[in-house]
Amino acid sequence: MTDATGAGDAIRVAVSTVIFSLRTAEDGDRLMLPLVRRTRTPHLGQWALPGGWLDPAEDLDAAASRTLAETTALKPSYLEQLYTFGDVDRAPTRAISIVYWALLRSDLVDAQRAAAGAPENVEWFDVDAMPPLAFDHNRIADYALWRLRNKVGYSRIAAGLLPDEFTLTELREVYETVLGQRLDPSNFRRLLEGSDELVPTESFRTGNHRPARLFRYVASA
Amino acid sequence: MTDATGAGDAIRVAVSTVIFSLRTAEDGDRLMLPLVRRTRTPHLGQWALPGGWLDPAEDLDAAASRTLAETTALKPSYLEQLYTFGDVDRAPTRAISIVYWALLRSDLVDAQRAAAGAPENVEWFDVDAMPPLAFDHNRIADYALWRLRNKVGYSRIAAGLLPDEFTLTELREVYETVLGQRLDPSNFRRLLEGSDELVPTESFRTGNHRPARLFRYVASA
Repeated sequence: MTDATGAGDAIRVAVSTVIFSLRTAEDGDRLMLPLVRRTRTPHLGQWALPGGWLDPAEDLDAAASRTLAETTALKPSYLEQLYTFGDVDRAPTRAISIVYWALLRSDLVDAQRAAAGAPENVEWFDVDAMPPLAFDHNRIADYALWRLRNKVGYSRIAAGLLPDEFTLTELREVYETVLGQRLDPSNFRRLLEGSDELVPTESFRTGNHRPARLFRYVASA
Repeated sequence: MTDATGAGDAIRVAVSTVIFSLRTAEDGDRLMLPLVRRTRTPHLGQWALPGGWLDPAEDLDAAASRTLAETTALKPSYLEQLYTFGDVDRAPTRAISIVYWALLRSDLVDAQRAAAGAPENVEWFDVDAMPPLAFDHNRIADYALWRLRNKVGYSRIAAGLLPDEFTLTELREVYETVLGQRLDPSNFRRLLEGSDELVPTESFRTGNHRPARLFRYVASA
């Protein structure tokens, strides 16, 4: 920004969001994301990430939330800017896309969709079975998945995919689903119980198994 | 990008770069960055980050390199996209800034400046003694510094600030300057010698002290 009247008018600015949640499939929980079928050219009929144009009067985070709500009726539990994609040839006319990635607690997905009336042209896809997407959206989705899998290892990011209280088994299953690999239950339990991030509650999950204590994350600093 | 003709025309796109290098000051090396004095309104006469408008025909990385070269004559040793800043009120008219952060080997700074003829209106500032900057550039510079200090801890990022071969003492001093704190020499040496990232060369640095072996990073995978 070294000039008050420079170029830039020919460049359009979009905002897109890759939002992940855990959805129950036949073989257990799967890490999935919603895609929107395009109703306009270019790429008419192809699947694309939820998004839209940035409004000149709104901040970037607000634009991500708005365009996500307009296209999918979803409100993220966690939202963070990922990267801005702007290769010259990524669209027929010059358009950059400021991309966010987001998490949604699995217990909220159906309620949000029902409250809004299930939006049209939206379907959830397994991250390991994505269709060919419009524009450079496959590359964008892959990058968001890489960031999620990196970040889950050193932060409480899994909290964005779970209700406020959960058992250690439920937490381990979130890690396993996100990372796509099994974790040793005793090692996981030892690691988490030694952390000062998790606090035990006085509640227990009951059911077919023996009661399991519920935990929650300590409040953020 | 859900529409081929949407809004966006009223939004201008800038690219800015926060580039760090080590510069020798009276009390030793300091982590510094170059700023450019503005010759136009708004913020006429204030210091700002190097940058300029995105050209519709160029990729984002190319725009960062070009605008950095045009304003400071510098060519980074390392360049990575940082974040896109786009608050509605960050400039008098709506402008988003795609910000890069970069590193420049200290042994190259003077040569690059001399080759281009020292550019006007550019001065280097200690990261701990920054003047008030135009727009939201103080916030941007602080964020880039935070990212650098985080990243230096778990990566070979210090290589972007050093010549290809260096002594372990020189490497430790880079870490100390970037982090702004002293590190225990024996611990540092033990940690680095145990890493498979560094390889010893057959060369030694000689001078007033006893000869010190030169190391280099292994080639990237």
